[in-house]
Amino acid sequence: MEPSNTFFTIAWRGDCVEMLDQRKLPLEESYVKLYSAQEVAGAISDMVIRGAPAIGVAAAMGIALGLKQSQAKDIEQLEKEFLNLYELLLYTRPTAVNLRWALDRMKLKFKSLSNRSVASVSAQMEREAMAVYQEDVEINRKMGQQGKKFILEGAQVLTYCNTGALATAGYGTALGVIRAAFEEGKSFEVFVSETRPYLQGLRLTSWELHKEGIPQTVITDNMAASLMAQKKIDAIFVGADRIARNGDTANKIGTYALAVLGHFHKIPFYVVAPTSTIDQACSSGQHIPIEERRREEIMVIQGHKMGLDDVAVYNPSFDVTPAQLISAIVTEKGVVEKPDEEKIAKLM
Amino acid sequence: MEPSNTFFTIAWRGDCVEMLDQRKLPLEESYVKLYSAQEVAGAISDMVIRGAPAIGVAAAMGIALGLKQSQAKDIEQLEKEFLNLYELLLYTRPTAVNLRWALDRMKLKFKSLSNRSVASVSAQMEREAMAVYQEDVEINRKMGQQGKKFILEGAQVLTYCNTGALATAGYGTALGVIRAAFEEGKSFEVFVSETRPYLQGLRLTSWELHKEGIPQTVITDNMAASLMAQKKIDAIFVGADRIARNGDTANKIGTYALAVLGHFHKIPFYVVAPTSTIDQACSSGQHIPIEERRREEIMVIQGHKMGLDDVAVYNPSFDVTPAQLISAIVTEKGVVEKPDEEKIAKLM
Repeated sequence: MEPSNTFFTIAWRGDCVEMLDQRKLPLEESYVKLYSAQEVAGAISDMVIRGAPAIGVAAAMGIALGLKQSQAKDIEQLEKEFLNLYELLLYTRPTAVNLRWALDRMKLKFKSLSNRSVASVSAQMEREAMAVYQEDVEINRKMGQQGKKFILEGAQVLTYCNTGALATAGYGTALGVIRAAFEEGKSFEVFVSETRPYLQGLRLTSWELHKEGIPQTVITDNMAASLMAQKKIDAIFVGADRIARNGDTANKIGTYALAVLGHFHKIPFYVVAPTSTIDQACSSGQHIPIEERRREEIMVIQGHKMGLDDVAVYNPSFDVTPAQLISAIVTEKGVVEKPDEEKIAKLM
Repeated sequence: MEPSNTFFTIAWRGDCVEMLDQRKLPLEESYVKLYSAQEVAGAISDMVIRGAPAIGVAAAMGIALGLKQSQAKDIEQLEKEFLNLYELLLYTRPTAVNLRWALDRMKLKFKSLSNRSVASVSAQMEREAMAVYQEDVEINRKMGQQGKKFILEGAQVLTYCNTGALATAGYGTALGVIRAAFEEGKSFEVFVSETRPYLQGLRLTSWELHKEGIPQTVITDNMAASLMAQKKIDAIFVGADRIARNGDTANKIGTYALAVLGHFHKIPFYVVAPTSTIDQACSSGQHIPIEERRREEIMVIQGHKMGLDDVAVYNPSFDVTPAQLISAIVTEKGVVEKPDEEKIAKLM
């Protein structure tokens, strides 16, 4: 199911969860094994793994691992432990809704099981985590099929952050659309915006595209506008961490700037995300919590100090793009052009 | 004349030119001495010193140093050497017009001298280079006075790249306006955009503001739009490397994005630059040459490798902001609101 047989993002190993350590890419390709739900939670908050769908999968595996290791004597005790695991994993990252979606799916499964023996519940929860993983790859492939028509032969497209196999169980969301167009034989070029502060574009997307042999050019985030003015960008593809009912979309900081710049230059702006990213409980973008991360992510780049210690920093991890600036949202269930509350309700 | 007695950007030492090595800031404050015009030219291309007005001053000092060291027997030979020095220094950086302006000023002086003995010409050229230096500081202070009214009490202003004492002989252009408002006792906050790839904001502007005690918050370039949407930016101040007759302005890559984002959010966008930045020979922005620099500046950050070796990079050092997106150009001779060819001609 993996888009490439040369690497994997996350894998279930029975006694542990194994992940590619994305903090070290692209210079070092190393894997870490996490032997407890606590270690999985730590890996999510420390961004060993990142990307909304991928952290949903990681959280589901974290639950499965915690339950499998449980010493619970009865189902009541196991449920108590389950709820603790749920909380532990939920609060690792606040913005991506896929995390809650995956955990809620695990909760629903837990409550629905008829055979309530500890061993049986634990085994079935493990299978459910596997299903979350498998379905994510399938959903990504469906999104790729839905969205590939937006990449025309000879196009130059801009992508942001990392929305590829590394951000999902495999294949990718926005990068999945790019993969699907490439697999179809289209020739086009991808501009990869580096995505400060964490450099997911320069480090991760560039690495994935290079593995796939898809033509790319890396730019810093502040260069996109200049390319647009030169008419060198035909379409913009981004992922999403949470989409409100009305189509407002939270995604990696800097996405909103690209949407405004796309609007100004009349360039279509596409959000590619599974329906699990749509938060029905959230009416608009202003209700999406925005994670702020440590100052060191700006002042220290990949372990190397750049700025002064005693200077204030603002480091929001996400921003919100209003639905009005989005040309279409591409999901596994279909494409919503000019998204609004009504059209999204219809899709769901 | 220096804005701070704790550092200097460039100084004439009689037998050499001394510069603060800006590549090592803010973690290391070290100075280099350049003992020939060739070394000065190398320091400009390698960005030991940068900033349009500062490289103008450096070029003038490079000429003075070269002439002082000349073994020329007569004025004809000295003139030949002068023209070689002129060429050598002119082609160090292609975009900033202050470089050509300073060199042309030196050429005019050379041709105008009535006492044509080699020793006398050399001495007078040295004095001319000193005048270029001194006048730059005075001009910056005048711009500060012209522009400070645009920073209101309690404002939050965004600045980009480094336009401070480090970019000039002293005091600064856009940062000079910020300094002048601060010296007047206004309280306000400066958001410093880090300015990839070279990080002039994070490394240089942040360092200068910290030395001055001006309140600041550092952001990455892709965060500015989000701050604007939150109504946290009241005005944007940038410098310029070249201004065409019609007001189109070339400045550090990423400036154009801020101008478009400012326009979208109805935030005033100010360019602060001496009239020596206005290129009367250039009718519009499309005729301004844009320097492209090495891939390593994106892929290697302050000596630390981040990206893959065999991936293409686009690294333009500047972009062009059309005059229509500029609220005003602040010069030492006055402020041109809503700049156009007619208003700029009148100013000159």
